[in-house]
Amino acid sequence: MSITHDIPCPHCSQPVTMYRNPAPTVDIVIYDPTKGVVLIERANEPHGWALPGGFIDYGETCESAAIREAKEETNLDVILTELIGVYSDPKRDPRHHTMSVAYSAVTNDASALMAGDDAQNARFFPLESLPTIVFDHDVIVADFANRLKRLNK
Amino acid sequence: MSITHDIPCPHCSQPVTMYRNPAPTVDIVIYDPTKGVVLIERANEPHGWALPGGFIDYGETCESAAIREAKEETNLDVILTELIGVYSDPKRDPRHHTMSVAYSAVTNDASALMAGDDAQNARFFPLESLPTIVFDHDVIVADFANRLKRLNK
Repeated sequence: MSITHDIPCPHCSQPVTMYRNPAPTVDIVIYDPTKGVVLIERANEPHGWALPGGFIDYGETCESAAIREAKEETNLDVILTELIGVYSDPKRDPRHHTMSVAYSAVTNDASALMAGDDAQNARFFPLESLPTIVFDHDVIVADFANRLKRLNK
Repeated sequence: MSITHDIPCPHCSQPVTMYRNPAPTVDIVIYDPTKGVVLIERANEPHGWALPGGFIDYGETCESAAIREAKEETNLDVILTELIGVYSDPKRDPRHHTMSVAYSAVTNDASALMAGDDAQNARFFPLESLPTIVFDHDVIVADFANRLKRLNK
């Protein structure tokens, strides 16, 4: 796959060649021991349930991006507890190549949950009764859940 | 910090606005139990000893990028053993904001070590006698070494 791509100049329409890397994002598995994990119902394509998350801004750490995106999309103040993994399969997002740094997190006020930015709904799901989840977020949740199960069986 | 930046169009010189994210990279701590860890002496600025690593290409996983960069810069075939962490302090590289996914790795033929791409020298250093290391690669090596020490004391 090409590491450069051309975009049209908005002034003269001629091609401007850009270096291209996977777009770095974060996803957050917010876990409450009695309620389960938070999923949001996406307002934009692809529709369906997904983890809260989004792009890492220039000048921002991955950890700050995770805390910011959790707040924007779920209204929850979270404390990151672990780096679950980094997910970078080029096919993980059908639109373009993104890579995700995935964290687990807890919150001390689960009752504050409220759908925000880009989300039409947000709720906790027990790990035993998850809905269909878009992107590879089912894999991220499964990696989190499997570790929890191994530690507590 | 702005999440967009302007670059001049090479044809008409007017500004083209681009979304801007930290540039995703990988770094690899290649460890041999008798020889220590591999560092390369950088041919380009900033000069000094550093971990092998580089940019993740569009269409490539982080893991593939790590194995590819290790081969290009050290001539070693490596097997990744662990995700050490993700390092994304905006000040970690003085030139621009990069984020690094750092892996530990082993090789089954340490004698193949040879400086490649962008490296004027490559050698193993015992963990007890490391040179001065550029960027935040000293932190990455210390995180790796501290875990090793905790596991083996």
